[in-house]
Amino acid sequence: MPAFQGYYPENLAHCYGCGHNNAHGHQIKTFWEDDETVTHFQPRPEHTAIPGFVYGGLLASLIDCHGTGTAAAAMYKAENRSMDSLPAFRFVTGSLQVSYLKLSRQITAAKSLLIPTSPSKGEE
Amino acid sequence: MPAFQGYYPENLAHCYGCGHNNAHGHQIKTFWEDDETVTHFQPRPEHTAIPGFVYGGLLASLIDCHGTGTAAAAMYKAENRSMDSLPAFRFVTGSLQVSYLKLSRQITAAKSLLIPTSPSKGEE
Repeated sequence: MPAFQGYYPENLAHCYGCGHNNAHGHQIKTFWEDDETVTHFQPRPEHTAIPGFVYGGLLASLIDCHGTGTAAAAMYKAENRSMDSLPAFRFVTGSLQVSYLKLSRQITAAKSLLIPTSPSKGEE
Repeated sequence: MPAFQGYYPENLAHCYGCGHNNAHGHQIKTFWEDDETVTHFQPRPEHTAIPGFVYGGLLASLIDCHGTGTAAAAMYKAENRSMDSLPAFRFVTGSLQVSYLKLSRQITAAKSLLIPTSPSKGEE
């Protein structure tokens, strides 16, 4: 199964962080793992802050695209629709808050646990 | 006069956002303009979110490096030292908050107006 970002409409898939139509971008990919959404990303050697540590702007980018991809996947799930069905969902980030708690030598993954705030349609 | 980032010590100048020793990075540059610090940056064609608009992760990166550069410049200024004097100041971002108020077709500049919170040494 493709990543969430693989389902983005062709005309909305040029994001530098995650667009599959952006050959120069990071091509961030997010998947379901049970009820969590997970993004794995391997920084390139140039993605450094100070030598040996990952660039904070890249971490922010990862969270940005992980979040918008998760939002799309969650909406399809809430509507009990497959991600290749139409109309397509595509979101942008309204506000981004990143606290850099410690220096990171490698990104392992970004994860989101989705907590329902209202009954899904299937439960109505 | 070089950008603030041009004064970073050689071993701490590999940042993907602003390090002058990172050939693959954004090479973000920040300067004084009167009492403000200003970063001008021209996104490359691939730095898109959706076509025609700047990638939010790049905006976050710009703010990150603008902020750390401004912090260093402000510290030299507070100590009435030139930026090529030692010991060198180099900062990292502890927390980053970006609100994306509208889609941006082009980055023009990031600006910071420094507001003194205590008398500078020269005024003591």
